[in-house]
Amino acid sequence: MNSFGRLFRLSIFGESHGPAIGILLDGVPPGIPLSEEDFSADISRRRPGAKGTTLRHETDLPLIESGCYKGRTSGTPLLLRFQNSDTRHGDYDAFIQQPRPGHADYIAGVKYFGCQDARGGGHFSGRITLGLVAAGVLAKKILAGVTFNSQLLGMGDGGNTDEAMTGAMAEGDSIGGVVSCRVTHLAAGLGEPFFDSLESLLAHVIFAIPGVRGVEFGDGFGAASMRGGEHNDVFVDEEGRTDTNHCGGINGGISNGNPLELKVAFKPTASIAREQLTWDFEQKKMAPLCIGGRHDICFALRAPVIVEAAVAVVLADLHLIRQSCLRGCFS
Amino acid sequence: MNSFGRLFRLSIFGESHGPAIGILLDGVPPGIPLSEEDFSADISRRRPGAKGTTLRHETDLPLIESGCYKGRTSGTPLLLRFQNSDTRHGDYDAFIQQPRPGHADYIAGVKYFGCQDARGGGHFSGRITLGLVAAGVLAKKILAGVTFNSQLLGMGDGGNTDEAMTGAMAEGDSIGGVVSCRVTHLAAGLGEPFFDSLESLLAHVIFAIPGVRGVEFGDGFGAASMRGGEHNDVFVDEEGRTDTNHCGGINGGISNGNPLELKVAFKPTASIAREQLTWDFEQKKMAPLCIGGRHDICFALRAPVIVEAAVAVVLADLHLIRQSCLRGCFS
Amino acid sequence: MNSFGRLFRLSIFGESHGPAIGILLDGVPPGIPLSEEDFSADISRRRPGAKGTTLRHETDLPLIESGCYKGRTSGTPLLLRFQNSDTRHGDYDAFIQQPRPGHADYIAGVKYFGCQDARGGGHFSGRITLGLVAAGVLAKKILAGVTFNSQLLGMGDGGNTDEAMTGAMAEGDSIGGVVSCRVTHLAAGLGEPFFDSLESLLAHVIFAIPGVRGVEFGDGFGAASMRGGEHNDVFVDEEGRTDTNHCGGINGGISNGNPLELKVAFKPTASIAREQLTWDFEQKKMAPLCIGGRHDICFALRAPVIVEAAVAVVLADLHLIRQSCLRGCFS
Amino acid sequence: MNSFGRLFRLSIFGESHGPAIGILLDGVPPGIPLSEEDFSADISRRRPGAKGTTLRHETDLPLIESGCYKGRTSGTPLLLRFQNSDTRHGDYDAFIQQPRPGHADYIAGVKYFGCQDARGGGHFSGRITLGLVAAGVLAKKILAGVTFNSQLLGMGDGGNTDEAMTGAMAEGDSIGGVVSCRVTHLAAGLGEPFFDSLESLLAHVIFAIPGVRGVEFGDGFGAASMRGGEHNDVFVDEEGRTDTNHCGGINGGISNGNPLELKVAFKPTASIAREQLTWDFEQKKMAPLCIGGRHDICFALRAPVIVEAAVAVVLADLHLIRQSCLRGCFS
Repeated sequence: MNSFGRLFRLSIFGESHGPAIGILLDGVPPGIPLSEEDFSADISRRRPGAKGTTLRHETDLPLIESGCYKGRTSGTPLLLRFQNSDTRHGDYDAFIQQPRPGHADYIAGVKYFGCQDARGGGHFSGRITLGLVAAGVLAKKILAGVTFNSQLLGMGDGGNTDEAMTGAMAEGDSIGGVVSCRVTHLAAGLGEPFFDSLESLLAHVIFAIPGVRGVEFGDGFGAASMRGGEHNDVFVDEEGRTDTNHCGGINGGISNGNPLELKVAFKPTASIAREQLTWDFEQKKMAPLCIGGRHDICFALRAPVIVEAAVAVVLADLHLIRQSCLRGCFS
Repeated sequence: MNSFGRLFRLSIFGESHGPAIGILLDGVPPGIPLSEEDFSADISRRRPGAKGTTLRHETDLPLIESGCYKGRTSGTPLLLRFQNSDTRHGDYDAFIQQPRPGHADYIAGVKYFGCQDARGGGHFSGRITLGLVAAGVLAKKILAGVTFNSQLLGMGDGGNTDEAMTGAMAEGDSIGGVVSCRVTHLAAGLGEPFFDSLESLLAHVIFAIPGVRGVEFGDGFGAASMRGGEHNDVFVDEEGRTDTNHCGGINGGISNGNPLELKVAFKPTASIAREQLTWDFEQKKMAPLCIGGRHDICFALRAPVIVEAAVAVVLADLHLIRQSCLRGCFS
Repeated sequence: MNSFGRLFRLSIFGESHGPAIGILLDGVPPGIPLSEEDFSADISRRRPGAKGTTLRHETDLPLIESGCYKGRTSGTPLLLRFQNSDTRHGDYDAFIQQPRPGHADYIAGVKYFGCQDARGGGHFSGRITLGLVAAGVLAKKILAGVTFNSQLLGMGDGGNTDEAMTGAMAEGDSIGGVVSCRVTHLAAGLGEPFFDSLESLLAHVIFAIPGVRGVEFGDGFGAASMRGGEHNDVFVDEEGRTDTNHCGGINGGISNGNPLELKVAFKPTASIAREQLTWDFEQKKMAPLCIGGRHDICFALRAPVIVEAAVAVVLADLHLIRQSCLRGCFS
Repeated sequence: MNSFGRLFRLSIFGESHGPAIGILLDGVPPGIPLSEEDFSADISRRRPGAKGTTLRHETDLPLIESGCYKGRTSGTPLLLRFQNSDTRHGDYDAFIQQPRPGHADYIAGVKYFGCQDARGGGHFSGRITLGLVAAGVLAKKILAGVTFNSQLLGMGDGGNTDEAMTGAMAEGDSIGGVVSCRVTHLAAGLGEPFFDSLESLLAHVIFAIPGVRGVEFGDGFGAASMRGGEHNDVFVDEEGRTDTNHCGGINGGISNGNPLELKVAFKPTASIAREQLTWDFEQKKMAPLCIGGRHDICFALRAPVIVEAAVAVVLADLHLIRQSCLRGCFS
């Protein structure tokens, strides 16, 4: 299903070229100052326009349809709705006949028995992440005092970013990238030992972001080739601090008070300017496909704020759950 | 919380040195042939004994306490319980005073306000995965016709496995490893476009396995340095088949009918034979720590069947959900 | 939280005098024909205007914001949004100072620490049930072939309805009522033996309707004064049919294929025309209160379609779950 | 599914004549003193033996299999297991051929496609409520300071209880009853305005108890024939206290700090000593049925502690959720 969370709960909706997209947030604590302008900073970080991102205009801020009164959250479900505009229906009509490689065109038809709204990728569009970014704004307000640092570590082969962009653009191609997120001043004790481990919950939401191919914590895949004596983080004081942070701030599925550190791999944009060969369901044979329209050469450029939002919504939920423990315990 | 699943739902319980560990399965379809012996093959795959795994005896099969009648599942909740034995309480007493690096000793105390059962890692013990492996047996019965191939791709620096083990053992150290899982004959259409994407659900359960540091699908982190024209899988027939499988069998969060492929990074075993320095909460200073007892040099050796179980329980749940769609749709 | 359901999942939102109210539906099967006009019949049944209901205009139909394409459900989350209009803010300002007896004014302040939108009852308004009624329309489409018969059994003391209305109106008072719902051609096998018994799920949603004070199935409270030999329904054929239906169509928490029968008690409308005494939080003493505005004398008049919707959404969810069993079973 | 709760989560399992029944509790706060003897008082209240209840021995206390260490809850999932004994398999064999009126024999066969464990009612047995009663013990520990008063209000036609019992027994019949539960010193603010209203959650769990036919709050069905001026509870002080309690301590789905009051209707025991006519699936015609074994004449006699447990588990969950709000809010 398309919702997530226990006490801070998100339900996402919308198609790229339908009337609106957005997100419904349940469990937002009452009394948080909130206006539509509060979303502008993060939505700007996600906005295309820089080199390598699309030229489509997305100036929109969400409309707050419920759950907010006199500039503060009221505690009831909060609906954030983004009206769609500046859409070009014709761009996408051909993809029912000839599904784009690397896209959900084909599988959406299987999943929804041909009833899907295929325009602009429909519900599979990257545009749907606008709602997640907006939810992240609320989540970060709940997590007052916690700091986030998210960035694009590298694109393409990891060499000079501009050269990678320029090279891909010249060849009508696209490139992937790796995004890191580091969270500091996070309380210890968030997460559960098994099914709701902190890594489990974070990876759950991060892998919901279109185009994510891998998630790792701390040393991640590098840990597989390390020795235990090298990977173990030694506790150096009463607060559980460690000088190294190979585990990325998590022991046994639970935040240990050191910085939370994770990395996310994004695949290259599936839509590329140059011609591709793929199956044509009308001609019943392979046929060349040209994807028009405007597309990011590297959508990982937009991804840091999206990954940050994914991380924040999980942490906000766990923060609220932890509050219940801190007051509810009997020890 | 320590449960997972929508229609096929797992709830795990138990401490390593408490009376019992196990798992409660809800939503098991009725009529599946089942006996306690059905668990022996997978539990043997998980069992230590080979070079590099501990010598502790774990011969146990689960007791089926409910949900099974006359050799078939009855459709009601199914409790699988493993009685604990061969435990050595004294081994672990010191770790409350001096938490082991890389273990949950410290964070368990924070999380549970000092009330945790610390013996043998308690609920954080790798032994808890026995229940997951048992659940995987049921899941694979639900997924009749689907085939799983899970293996340890490499240990340590990826060179010769025996040399890596021998080297680590000689130095009283441990090593990590990477496990792959490949699933074939899986139906297309499993998973949801956003929060319950197939990657999201799989990563959620896989990251619950103690010691996992990274999860990737298809080309995974490698995709970040690829071009789109290289990474896109071209559809070559009416069934959505592709000659390449860079996406690991998933488009838009949904299985596309091609093999599901993923890799999991395991950190090196945290318990190592040689002395480590760590904080001593009684002496209030750093002090040397020696961890006795029996420990795996590379617990990734046991991990393939555990990863496979994690994958299977997710797929079984999605298979049941998909059945509902196939009959419930109106198109 | 303000959502419900497993495979057919509802999330409700909105305040009476905020920008909009509505409901988000997840898990709607694809391919169901749907237009905004499909909601008009049921929304008309809920609409005030007749004797005993308010004169406030509620002509609105929902806007379908997502999840619907070319006149059919697309399978993705479906947002139904009702824009608010014809609201009178001034009517309600005094109720923060002096909470209305029988209303949520007081408790909303406690629950939300004074941050609630109190206008028109805010999220507690009966208007919020518009979303439930709209969800019921979808649910009944999912339950093709199942028939619903919901009616107001009686108002006030159960005597002549018009006399009861006229009497209450003359005295500036209000009256309660009992609503029945009977569902026929429902499949056997819906519901679970324990926590998700059919009665449990139905009562859960029905008790969410503002003003419900009691729910009973079959003979209900009358069963408490019956003998077993009188209450037991005797099976009379291979289909599990019974000549009597004291159990209301449910055995062991599961629909048995006979008509589902239940009754719902509604309290009298809390807002009455005549003066009441209640606590004044500014004057810090008891003080008289006059509630202006337009209010139903008996809102149970509107309730049959709301109860029917509550029943339908539960049954639609269970129908989808049952589909999964019918295909997923191994017997 | 057979589980319930958000932060304090229950999963029930077991068949009457299988190896064991019990309950798994997740989200139990750490540090609560707990021993097996703590269950004896409530289990004794549920135990048969008095006039009108069965003579079957149920002396058992639960075994605490996990989640408890050194006499205190440890914070991890807590498994309570009751071993079955003193069962008589032969008593129930005939009921597959000839389902007992008022029992789940018939519907269990439909639901589980003939795979159910029918012995002693299997998972539908009233014995399964032992787990709920045990969960109630934990719940009441979490709700320190809250007091519960549960009693059987009346049996049969509401006249003299002993006469009703004696009369029914003499005629080989059974009788129903009504149970009340009153909870005092409960905090205000528990429950949600819509789907998780306090009444919704309470009714959900109460209707899971076998044999419940109706649930009402405050004046309940009586409210339907009242006037608003009569039913409204007038606030008389700053604490929201009311002199009357027609609403049963709930406004808008949320506890208002006044006593919580509810009533539950139990049907007469389905198993009666005298002969009944019902369908015979082998003879394919109606045939007489005699139910041997030991059965309660009025199982409502045992029900007060079960209803109390149902109420307590809901309140404990809401108490923990409320703790999170109290600390998490921003007002």
